[in-house]
Amino acid sequence: MALNVTQKLIKDHLVSGEMTPGSEIGLKIDQTLTQDATGTMVMLELEAMNLDYAKTEASAQYVDHNLIQVDNKNPDDHLFLESAAKRFGLYYSRPGNGVSHPVHMQRLAKPGKTLLGSDSHTCANGCMGMLAMGAGGIDVAMAIAGEPFYVKMPEVWGVKLTGDLPEWVSAKDVIFELLRRHDVKGGVGKVIEYYGPGLKKLSAMDRHVIANMGAELGATGTVFPSDKEVKRFLKEQGREEDWIELKGDRRASYDVDEEINMDELVPLVAKPSSPGNVVPVTEVEGEPIYQSYIGSSANPGFRDFAMVAEIVKGKQVAEGVSLDINPTSRQMLTNFVQEGHMASLLQAGSRLHQAGCNGCIGMGQAPATGRNSLRTTPRNFPGRSGTREDSVYLCGPEVAAASALTGKITDPRKLDMEYPKIKNPKNPKVDNNLLDEPIPQGQARHVELHKGPNIASIPEMDELPNQLEVSILLKMGDNISTDEILAGGARVLPFRSNLPEISKFTFEIIDESYYDRGMETREIGHAVVGGYNYGQGSSREHAALAPRFLGLRVALVKDFARIHWQNLVNFGILPITFVHEEDYQKLEQGDVLEFTNLREKIQHSNQFKITIKGTGEEIEVEHALSARQIDMMLHGGLINWMKQRQV
Amino acid sequence: MALNVTQKLIKDHLVSGEMTPGSEIGLKIDQTLTQDATGTMVMLELEAMNLDYAKTEASAQYVDHNLIQVDNKNPDDHLFLESAAKRFGLYYSRPGNGVSHPVHMQRLAKPGKTLLGSDSHTCANGCMGMLAMGAGGIDVAMAIAGEPFYVKMPEVWGVKLTGDLPEWVSAKDVIFELLRRHDVKGGVGKVIEYYGPGLKKLSAMDRHVIANMGAELGATGTVFPSDKEVKRFLKEQGREEDWIELKGDRRASYDVDEEINMDELVPLVAKPSSPGNVVPVTEVEGEPIYQSYIGSSANPGFRDFAMVAEIVKGKQVAEGVSLDINPTSRQMLTNFVQEGHMASLLQAGSRLHQAGCNGCIGMGQAPATGRNSLRTTPRNFPGRSGTREDSVYLCGPEVAAASALTGKITDPRKLDMEYPKIKNPKNPKVDNNLLDEPIPQGQARHVELHKGPNIASIPEMDELPNQLEVSILLKMGDNISTDEILAGGARVLPFRSNLPEISKFTFEIIDESYYDRGMETREIGHAVVGGYNYGQGSSREHAALAPRFLGLRVALVKDFARIHWQNLVNFGILPITFVHEEDYQKLEQGDVLEFTNLREKIQHSNQFKITIKGTGEEIEVEHALSARQIDMMLHGGLINWMKQRQV
Repeated sequence: MALNVTQKLIKDHLVSGEMTPGSEIGLKIDQTLTQDATGTMVMLELEAMNLDYAKTEASAQYVDHNLIQVDNKNPDDHLFLESAAKRFGLYYSRPGNGVSHPVHMQRLAKPGKTLLGSDSHTCANGCMGMLAMGAGGIDVAMAIAGEPFYVKMPEVWGVKLTGDLPEWVSAKDVIFELLRRHDVKGGVGKVIEYYGPGLKKLSAMDRHVIANMGAELGATGTVFPSDKEVKRFLKEQGREEDWIELKGDRRASYDVDEEINMDELVPLVAKPSSPGNVVPVTEVEGEPIYQSYIGSSANPGFRDFAMVAEIVKGKQVAEGVSLDINPTSRQMLTNFVQEGHMASLLQAGSRLHQAGCNGCIGMGQAPATGRNSLRTTPRNFPGRSGTREDSVYLCGPEVAAASALTGKITDPRKLDMEYPKIKNPKNPKVDNNLLDEPIPQGQARHVELHKGPNIASIPEMDELPNQLEVSILLKMGDNISTDEILAGGARVLPFRSNLPEISKFTFEIIDESYYDRGMETREIGHAVVGGYNYGQGSSREHAALAPRFLGLRVALVKDFARIHWQNLVNFGILPITFVHEEDYQKLEQGDVLEFTNLREKIQHSNQFKITIKGTGEEIEVEHALSARQIDMMLHGGLINWMKQRQV
Repeated sequence: MALNVTQKLIKDHLVSGEMTPGSEIGLKIDQTLTQDATGTMVMLELEAMNLDYAKTEASAQYVDHNLIQVDNKNPDDHLFLESAAKRFGLYYSRPGNGVSHPVHMQRLAKPGKTLLGSDSHTCANGCMGMLAMGAGGIDVAMAIAGEPFYVKMPEVWGVKLTGDLPEWVSAKDVIFELLRRHDVKGGVGKVIEYYGPGLKKLSAMDRHVIANMGAELGATGTVFPSDKEVKRFLKEQGREEDWIELKGDRRASYDVDEEINMDELVPLVAKPSSPGNVVPVTEVEGEPIYQSYIGSSANPGFRDFAMVAEIVKGKQVAEGVSLDINPTSRQMLTNFVQEGHMASLLQAGSRLHQAGCNGCIGMGQAPATGRNSLRTTPRNFPGRSGTREDSVYLCGPEVAAASALTGKITDPRKLDMEYPKIKNPKNPKVDNNLLDEPIPQGQARHVELHKGPNIASIPEMDELPNQLEVSILLKMGDNISTDEILAGGARVLPFRSNLPEISKFTFEIIDESYYDRGMETREIGHAVVGGYNYGQGSSREHAALAPRFLGLRVALVKDFARIHWQNLVNFGILPITFVHEEDYQKLEQGDVLEFTNLREKIQHSNQFKITIKGTGEEIEVEHALSARQIDMMLHGGLINWMKQRQV
């Protein structure tokens, strides 16, 4: 049977399941990527699992998110990550080395491999002929420990690229076009695979731009073939030997078909406040801007920065506009400086920041109240910039540079200049200075984890008891989001490496007394009751881990949002639903639920009865756990389950 | 009579008083400098005074402190400052343009002039043959409004420089040597004036280094003559016409005499946690470091950065060390990039940050817990880095660079290399891109102040009532500091432009109920009672302004710390002391004090009686206000006093 690239990658890594779209498959993971905002918990999970040494071919821990060090917390986390990388045999990319995705592409990505990362833009490395996917922290921890990654077999969405990008139109406009057509949920359950004659016109870094923002379509991944361009890129990185060719079979087909004729593309802009809110730049021309922001994993390449430098060269940034330059890697910055582009940018009046994610994840560079910010970043969700009620437009480097010169959103085709031809650096530098290699396993065993005062190990969790008497601490309505379960933001994020501290914020938005009441049940456990779509929203695993820390054993609701359900299972909280939804009415906050012979019951049937203490009334409940998940649940969650496997 | 440079500068600007050390003199101020952390309140004061247009020759508002934009507050403040600079006829140095002191030196400083700045390191511009002094915010506001600056006539401390700096020893070691000899209070009440044959060996930027850290000796100012080197510097800046010669008379003498033979200097280091804790580098060699920090107004020059680049060129920063590069101005950065030094720094593994004060004022780059940080900054007070119980060593660029290579404090003379010869840029660039010029007065009048949601105007304050019945809201002991009156730190600082918000933190450390109780007295007023040395510590004017906002009218204590006393007067709070200190015992929190005919009494005598309501017992009190200050007090403070003068 003729296979496309995605199918080849999956077939090569299939550990369990059938390649039928929608059915669960287990995939061998070759490489992992963690960043600092999610990585601290992953490293604590590895510690809790008693992992000795990474079982992947290459795993890298990047520090690119929390670069602002206003007190000891972030630098302490960096040192912890450095020690954990040494302890568990990971690469460690030091603060200031750059954004994980382009650095990984430059230094570690390999065609034909799988990459799992605890960052939603991990899909960017699909540009290298890899199957690269974002996932929750503990999924990545499991992959580092050598376990398969379980995911629904995706549909493969073939996007045929034809034609060539017109002048002033860039790779960013290709992915904007797909977002314009299909909006932010258009890729759910799919891997987007690009092919066709247009590929020849796109550099590996151009493909990175396109692959990266597959995340904005909700796709499971983005896949490009590994062709001569990938070979050229790897050669430039001094890694030609890592290249293999990987192409779809001649007669390969796709589950979904699409075509983009690049000849027809125009410069596009995503208006506030969704990456799917895409219009031609001509529709928003003249909108005044306050900030033009260059950088992020959505436009990380030398070419993207050089284009901006060439456009502003010899000119002046408009008064009142901050042209914020955010290098995406030190390697890119070094080449950029050596080619003379930095001088052009500085002399035009730009503001140079350190290499990292920076404002793209709201870590600095928040815009002023009521002002428009124009950014080459992938996301403009409300408030993500750090400013409430912000107004962020997304675009490619050409629009950002042209607009910085005029002070308003500007169609770069109307600039009075020739379209710059960007040359690659003649002697491109490879920079491994701040990328520490893993140390050998024998040495790694002697490394102690370095824990500053803000870093707390994950406490031991007991296995599922056979008898439970748990009080209902909260009864909630429908559509409770993980933001309500455990908020994000600058107030809470510094405690992401400290479960006891972050748990103080649990359910705070719904009921401030929950933390104190939960703490009283830490030994005996408690339950929560909810309505439909319980746990919708962000995938943050802390929203399961923190209530578990406070004694949550059972979540009984009408139905669950998928990812939070998975997180509850992973951390040993029994997720059950009403067989008869009207029973929801019978329960009140404060009621005590009795579970007898629980361990046997969940193994023998997906339905069983529980009793309301006092009244003796019975309620029928059900679970949707697979055999693998039941085993995990009996052990008290994934960490305990892994721990016994490591012994 | 033969005059030294300081005396000439004072004589040329003397508006009132006698040039007898210790007696109050009024000085005409030619230039002012404000930065963003203090400048927002200065601009609000100008607004409250109804100032139309700056009366100085040049006033500049810099944005260099609060560059981290995690939400709207800092960027909103920047926009406010930009609008205020336009409104009041000031230069505006945009975020990212660099640190006030070197930028001012490059673009605005003029020999023979006075400069007053709301930043303690304003003295740095004394390197240009100026009398440059730091002061409180409202003092600078007054200067912008054309009022004299009142200060005690300083003693002039003549420091004769002889010899030449040995290799690996720099200007930083000259000021370290003075700190080694005299510690951090050695310069109180003095202007330090440098002269002698050694001057020829010091560039204008070297002198900046020395002048800057006069603040660490507690000096009123630092003065250098304006000689051919200053002329050369101004020529390089395209401002040769701003040069005048200014030298001490041949037979000039000094109040205090000192000599430093530069031939005998060695590389010095200030150990934690005081700039006065100076030892030869050999005493601390081998101490492991975690961070080597380059930048700040204490080492802002091209030469300082180029020295680091030359030392690390072709080598690698030690594992586990962050070499943090903090450009001090965009102009310096541009020249640095063009001369090829940036490439050397990047390739050695350094971490490049945006141009500004950054970690020097705890705005990022805080070190990890328990690790040593080595910095070219001027101060290492405990916790100033942002990390509690930090361990910060100060040094010059040579020691910082050598230590970054080895990972421990290293005597640069022991590096196996020749001492680098630093050449000035061949075609030095002048950069005015982000320094907006004042707009003409006619246009300025039409500018509206741009106030984001965090910016609150200073409320109107009423004049001193003739009758007062004020309850004692707090009775305190001795040595109450301004930190206890109004704390600093990241929790409080974002509200520096918002008096109603920042007042919520008033006396919080002493009594959390003060704010609520104060708010109840806003109309009728209240008093506080204290012991000796009331208001010691930091000069922050918010420690007077915030309690005044909450209704404080009278502070009755045993004695006052000088600057807080001045701040109380400036904001219309009557500072009085007990004639008979034992009367302190008679007063209790909650007692009500009656003041009758107050306006007449303070004009006619510096002693008068007040009554404790209920008991009728009388207490004799006194004030130390000058006639000028009495007038100010009657008007309800300096802002009201200025307002009637602007009409």
